[in-house]
Amino acid sequence: MEQSKNTKIKSWAETAPTLVAVAAGRAPADLVIKNGIWVNVHTREVLEGHDIAIAQGRIAYVGTSAAHCTGPETQVIDAKGRYMIPGLLDGHMHIESGMLTPAEFARAVTPHGTTTMFTDPHEIANVLGLEGVRLMHDEALLQPVNIFTQMPSCAPSAPGLETTGFEISAEDVAEAMDWPGIIGLGEMMNFPGVVNGDPQMLAEIAATQNAGKTVGGHYASPDLGPAFSAYVAGGPADDHEGTCEADAIARMRQGMRAMVRLGSAWYDVEAQITAITQKGLDPRNFILCTDDCHSGTLVNDGHMNRVVRHAIDCGCDPVVALQMATINTATHFGLERELGSLTPGRRADVILTSDLRSLPIELVIARGAVVAENGKVRVDFPLLDWPQHARETVNMAKDLSADDFVIDAPEGANRVTARVIGMVENQAPTKALSFDMEVANGRVEPDAAQDIAQIALVERHRATGGVVNAFVSGFGYKGPMALASTVAHDSHHMIVVGTDRANMALAANRLRAVGGGVVLFADGQEQALVELPIAGLMSDRPAAEVAQKAEALGRAMEAAGCTLNNAYMQHSLLALVVIPELRISDKGLVDVRSFEVTSLFEGYE
Amino acid sequence: MEQSKNTKIKSWAETAPTLVAVAAGRAPADLVIKNGIWVNVHTREVLEGHDIAIAQGRIAYVGTSAAHCTGPETQVIDAKGRYMIPGLLDGHMHIESGMLTPAEFARAVTPHGTTTMFTDPHEIANVLGLEGVRLMHDEALLQPVNIFTQMPSCAPSAPGLETTGFEISAEDVAEAMDWPGIIGLGEMMNFPGVVNGDPQMLAEIAATQNAGKTVGGHYASPDLGPAFSAYVAGGPADDHEGTCEADAIARMRQGMRAMVRLGSAWYDVEAQITAITQKGLDPRNFILCTDDCHSGTLVNDGHMNRVVRHAIDCGCDPVVALQMATINTATHFGLERELGSLTPGRRADVILTSDLRSLPIELVIARGAVVAENGKVRVDFPLLDWPQHARETVNMAKDLSADDFVIDAPEGANRVTARVIGMVENQAPTKALSFDMEVANGRVEPDAAQDIAQIALVERHRATGGVVNAFVSGFGYKGPMALASTVAHDSHHMIVVGTDRANMALAANRLRAVGGGVVLFADGQEQALVELPIAGLMSDRPAAEVAQKAEALGRAMEAAGCTLNNAYMQHSLLALVVIPELRISDKGLVDVRSFEVTSLFEGYE
Repeated sequence: MEQSKNTKIKSWAETAPTLVAVAAGRAPADLVIKNGIWVNVHTREVLEGHDIAIAQGRIAYVGTSAAHCTGPETQVIDAKGRYMIPGLLDGHMHIESGMLTPAEFARAVTPHGTTTMFTDPHEIANVLGLEGVRLMHDEALLQPVNIFTQMPSCAPSAPGLETTGFEISAEDVAEAMDWPGIIGLGEMMNFPGVVNGDPQMLAEIAATQNAGKTVGGHYASPDLGPAFSAYVAGGPADDHEGTCEADAIARMRQGMRAMVRLGSAWYDVEAQITAITQKGLDPRNFILCTDDCHSGTLVNDGHMNRVVRHAIDCGCDPVVALQMATINTATHFGLERELGSLTPGRRADVILTSDLRSLPIELVIARGAVVAENGKVRVDFPLLDWPQHARETVNMAKDLSADDFVIDAPEGANRVTARVIGMVENQAPTKALSFDMEVANGRVEPDAAQDIAQIALVERHRATGGVVNAFVSGFGYKGPMALASTVAHDSHHMIVVGTDRANMALAANRLRAVGGGVVLFADGQEQALVELPIAGLMSDRPAAEVAQKAEALGRAMEAAGCTLNNAYMQHSLLALVVIPELRISDKGLVDVRSFEVTSLFEGYE
Repeated sequence: MEQSKNTKIKSWAETAPTLVAVAAGRAPADLVIKNGIWVNVHTREVLEGHDIAIAQGRIAYVGTSAAHCTGPETQVIDAKGRYMIPGLLDGHMHIESGMLTPAEFARAVTPHGTTTMFTDPHEIANVLGLEGVRLMHDEALLQPVNIFTQMPSCAPSAPGLETTGFEISAEDVAEAMDWPGIIGLGEMMNFPGVVNGDPQMLAEIAATQNAGKTVGGHYASPDLGPAFSAYVAGGPADDHEGTCEADAIARMRQGMRAMVRLGSAWYDVEAQITAITQKGLDPRNFILCTDDCHSGTLVNDGHMNRVVRHAIDCGCDPVVALQMATINTATHFGLERELGSLTPGRRADVILTSDLRSLPIELVIARGAVVAENGKVRVDFPLLDWPQHARETVNMAKDLSADDFVIDAPEGANRVTARVIGMVENQAPTKALSFDMEVANGRVEPDAAQDIAQIALVERHRATGGVVNAFVSGFGYKGPMALASTVAHDSHHMIVVGTDRANMALAANRLRAVGGGVVLFADGQEQALVELPIAGLMSDRPAAEVAQKAEALGRAMEAAGCTLNNAYMQHSLLALVVIPELRISDKGLVDVRSFEVTSLFEGYE
């Protein structure tokens, strides 16, 4: 595998003397792509018979003939009449969602034509704080493609309702704004905080604005009245939580950019793109992104090429759809003169494709070097040398036993009415259910007949030994089993769901031993394991290997009786104490409707 | 006259707590505009029945009812169903062209709806150097409207062919990038320098790019081949020298913004806007500007309202035309979240108009305060206390006499063949003419029969006593007269054109006495005078007064026999040694075709 020459790229200012000389014909280009169709995302034109000349990783010339820039040493690629489109940009995403490090994520998406990502390492921030963000940022900067980091804004996501490994302060945000790869603030999820004028949230936004960078938004509410207006007035410049046409329109009208998602489990493009395709709004403020993609999606379905193709399938003009994944995004982040179009001075990130609708990604050039061809990467994606303590983040005081998962009934109770977390298929929100449950030997047991399993939140950041036990219904698990995961949004302790306490202990201890990941035990035997040693969130193995293990886990879950679609993702969200109705955290069972810790039992007799 | 409260405006970050509180209904707005039609330049929509709430000079809320933001102290303006459009932006202009200081220029254009200007004080830079730029910048920052300064890039315009009062260096550019009102680099006129890789020009561009600011372009050539490509690769981000559709298209395709002018003497919109109206290109990179407006245009015809109206008359959709004078411009300069649209957080620069096509400017609000109403300003536009040396820039060693303008014939000559600057009506370029002229008493005299007058370049920056004499043909002057001007692009010495040496001396000495301006003498009597005491370029009097004097000057020129349209402007350009063919400078007669100083006589007998 060739070492990438272009992990560092000089600025336009530094390369201008060379670019000028090449364009004027006084110096040879490093690379010329000849005989292509120039897809111009500035003018929205498709122009046949163009050449591109590249030097020092940047575009020096685009015109009808680069013969004057071509020397004996110039590498020449004949596009043979194919389309030349800019490398694709993902406007907002979380690398951790792929369970991959930045290097492996980049390696997985580059053959799909994604050459620029705006990534919010929110998950690792909860585990390792500012240092975790820095590590992600540093690995990102080693890559031969462009990974910009959005500084996470909300760790913890729900202050007072959960304990994270570390917290992010306004001072951390201000400090990070000086790092070379920081492009702005990650999604400001604490929208009630902004609407209510929370000083820390406004200070984080101010630090970002004062640094001249972009404030990411996250307004997860259907209320488009004054609360939304107040959020906009607070400063977030984009929002990706819209789900319907009215959401997209409201965001664009108010001077935000509508970021619109097609992720592994987000399907928000079709409902919102009608703002452009049917209502005819100016498309310049409509941006495509993925937000979250699992490794399986990356391996099997694609990345931003999948999103653009989907937008076209939804009726969007192909060049407009490409604008939504190139120049619109670049402009939003103040990078319009750095990348996002095939014009002089910009980073030479170019895709060759033979069809603008089906968008096969045939050749990918990043910073002037061929990085992927026909689905195969052609350069190295260097891993950071992750420090040992980033690989030892499952900090439990000791191995657990079945007894740690015992749920005692209230003193003297014969029957209890329990608060039970109710799963809803294909939805992130849960229901706050209420079940009558039997008491045996002073304990309340999981109840397969009512599809009630146990759920435990195992503290793993400070070795407190804390285990919070509760009940969950809806997975359909049968027989003695347990599924444990250290991916446990957003505070990322360990979530264990099981029908049997012994298996729960086995699963939790196994993750302690391997440093984090996801494991399923049934009948006392390990059925599937995805090791995620880095922060308990990410593998340092390639996407295909992780996807294979994740698929094996999915099959093991089905074999254990699970009836829900995409159940692992739902499992990992059961501690997300910002989404209604009932969740679990290290503080206890949380009623997210009232933002209060509540008791496990409503009553007993 | 009310003192403006809003010459200083706090940042969005500083005002966010208030804006959020107002939008949420917890605090009252300072001002509410109710019952308007919201012209949305983000989405390209016209939306009836909207209110705007304003606090601390910024927009807090836009929606269907601002009742929740309206307190007992809130000022309420009823738009009565009129359109609410953003204050207009002029993307590139020179304040000095109006012969007014920034304050008086702003006072003149505010009633026409221009609330933001991007100004390049190139002229004063030639006279007073970096300090002159700073003085313009400082007066700009005192105003109740937004005047951003582009740091001049090219003083002298023609190094080696002229001597300016001061020179601008790459270090000056780097220093100015830290000033609060500097938005970028002014038009990079030395396009041959960029194309040839001139280190100083590339260093100025690099200093601007490294500061994250916008590099203004000026590519005054019809050549759209490799030379143009090399210029683009050098870094300029816009260009306003295009004159035909192909120019605009080439600039936009190459990732520049096409700035398109309607000035007092520039008529470049009609020919270029067809790129949008007929060719259907994405309009986002098309920006309207004036470049140069005389005081008479400002008083009689308007400013950016005139340009937008003209674009609409040329067939452009009114909202698209407004985008070209609002959000397109703001985005170009990285100010999209600061101004240019009526959305939360932005400066509250709002125009009320009852018609989107004829665009009457009925009420103008800037930074939340009413600044003009029905053509009258409502606030003060503070003048800087200009230092005395900025008012004493006509530095001649002594008064001149008729003898200083004598043109000696070559020794022993009876007839000469003289190189004569030939005027071409309504065009900036001159012709290099050749005339046979008589010799009398060893001197060559102006020749009314052949319409040949004398022209003199009187040095005025360093009191060298230098006077360069030459001939000019085409004005049509009759009888003994002289016209002198200290506006003498770009080095701004003094240009005197006359049929009679005694009148030439009178005119030059008069300007020395008044500290600069324009004066016409005929038959030994002063016929008209426009005093321009500041740098010899600008008046500190109101535009109407200057326009009146300029009109009187024009009438006096006609009375003196002048047959050319707009002859004063042509007069002031006769030392502009970057435009072909023949010009005058303090170095001598300049052949701009070869960029060489040439002799006055081709031959003699």
